[in-house]
Amino acid sequence: MRSVVLFYLCFLLCLCLGVACVVCVSLWNTRWRGGFAWNGSALQFNWHPVLMTTGLVVLYGYGAVLYRVPLTWGQNKLPWKLLHASLMLLAFILSVVGLCAVFDFHNAKNTPNLYSLHSWIGISAVALFALQWVGGMAGFLLPWTPVSFRKLLKPTHVWFGGSILTLSIAACISGINEKLFFVLKGNTSASYGQLPPEALLANSLGVLIVAFGLVVLKILSNPKWQRPDSRPENTAYSPLLQEDNE
Amino acid sequence: MRSVVLFYLCFLLCLCLGVACVVCVSLWNTRWRGGFAWNGSALQFNWHPVLMTTGLVVLYGYGAVLYRVPLTWGQNKLPWKLLHASLMLLAFILSVVGLCAVFDFHNAKNTPNLYSLHSWIGISAVALFALQWVGGMAGFLLPWTPVSFRKLLKPTHVWFGGSILTLSIAACISGINEKLFFVLKGNTSASYGQLPPEALLANSLGVLIVAFGLVVLKILSNPKWQRPDSRPENTAYSPLLQEDNE
Repeated sequence: MRSVVLFYLCFLLCLCLGVACVVCVSLWNTRWRGGFAWNGSALQFNWHPVLMTTGLVVLYGYGAVLYRVPLTWGQNKLPWKLLHASLMLLAFILSVVGLCAVFDFHNAKNTPNLYSLHSWIGISAVALFALQWVGGMAGFLLPWTPVSFRKLLKPTHVWFGGSILTLSIAACISGINEKLFFVLKGNTSASYGQLPPEALLANSLGVLIVAFGLVVLKILSNPKWQRPDSRPENTAYSPLLQEDNE
Repeated sequence: MRSVVLFYLCFLLCLCLGVACVVCVSLWNTRWRGGFAWNGSALQFNWHPVLMTTGLVVLYGYGAVLYRVPLTWGQNKLPWKLLHASLMLLAFILSVVGLCAVFDFHNAKNTPNLYSLHSWIGISAVALFALQWVGGMAGFLLPWTPVSFRKLLKPTHVWFGGSILTLSIAACISGINEKLFFVLKGNTSASYGQLPPEALLANSLGVLIVAFGLVVLKILSNPKWQRPDSRPENTAYSPLLQEDNE
């Protein structure tokens, strides 16, 4: 009982931190960076931090902890599995649009793509995310995958998922840091070194992203919070896809 | 047996990646950044990436996975515990000297300290590391801590340790990225966007640091690779400090 209460406290914290990340990154790009457009300008770039934070961090994190909610354990797994896959797909789509925003912006300015360490880490996160989604789909949703293979795949899927989130966090922190050095320069009161309100907000966004990621990784790593393997209810509903107890 | 072989493969990978990180960061700062000094110049700054990578990432990671080596399981835990604490203390000292290098450099140039997101994440990692070391010392090495409290503290200590490593990785990636934007600028063939050899080496260092961190976190997260709780050998040797089975 104590473990369930503790879980819901962590889960609530995770939900709140996720919302706070999305609010902060949107506020930063609306209030200080001039808002949004899709015309190759800096306003198009602004979609990049908003979509990567929302997709690759927040929605991804929400999707990852979904199975840990004890409320879902007594229920058939399949609908939750489909919700997990859908949330991850939405997270992936937002990330890809977020990448398009920055590629278009670079191309319009004749700036090279994928040269910085930030971009190397970020593109690796998205590429591994694509692999993970396809692997997860093939391994856990297609009916012909043997249950024994699913059992073998599951710990790798969970660890790989945590690793992708770690990459996303590193990409976000380096990206926010880089952006602030680009836009808050010179020896004025608005320079990064003077910590103007924009810098305080964006640094806080970075701290929130790290806190969110650590709470998600904490939820994923606690064995007590894992959905129990076998449930009689699991076998009650298997319309199209093979049900499994992995 | 298969699990032990897999462990040693991961452990070997971890050792090699750690050495590769130290070699790369030293090579970068010797070959391209002019080497080292302690005089407030950019050469003093060069100690910062070398000491943070060596201390806060590599030695820290080596210290973290020490208990997982099956070779140590049949032996008394106390000497390994002291080695763990010593490695972590050395890692902490290197990190603090690495921080002094950058503070001195900033002060000599009248640059503010602790304003960037990189510095916020980095200083949080070092501060939490200090707390973790003191908490670990008090909880696991002092003889009057009850065994029941040690058992309670252990999962928190392990999770906190992984979180500090995640913060260190994010700090390293943002730091390397920031440094490369600072030093490789302008529209020459040596600008960051043209990916000159220095950028390739330092970006690769970032990738190696992430890979090292993920292997360490993988080793820490596998329950099969945890030192078994109770061993009769544990009680054979307890000279000064209370032996425990936590």
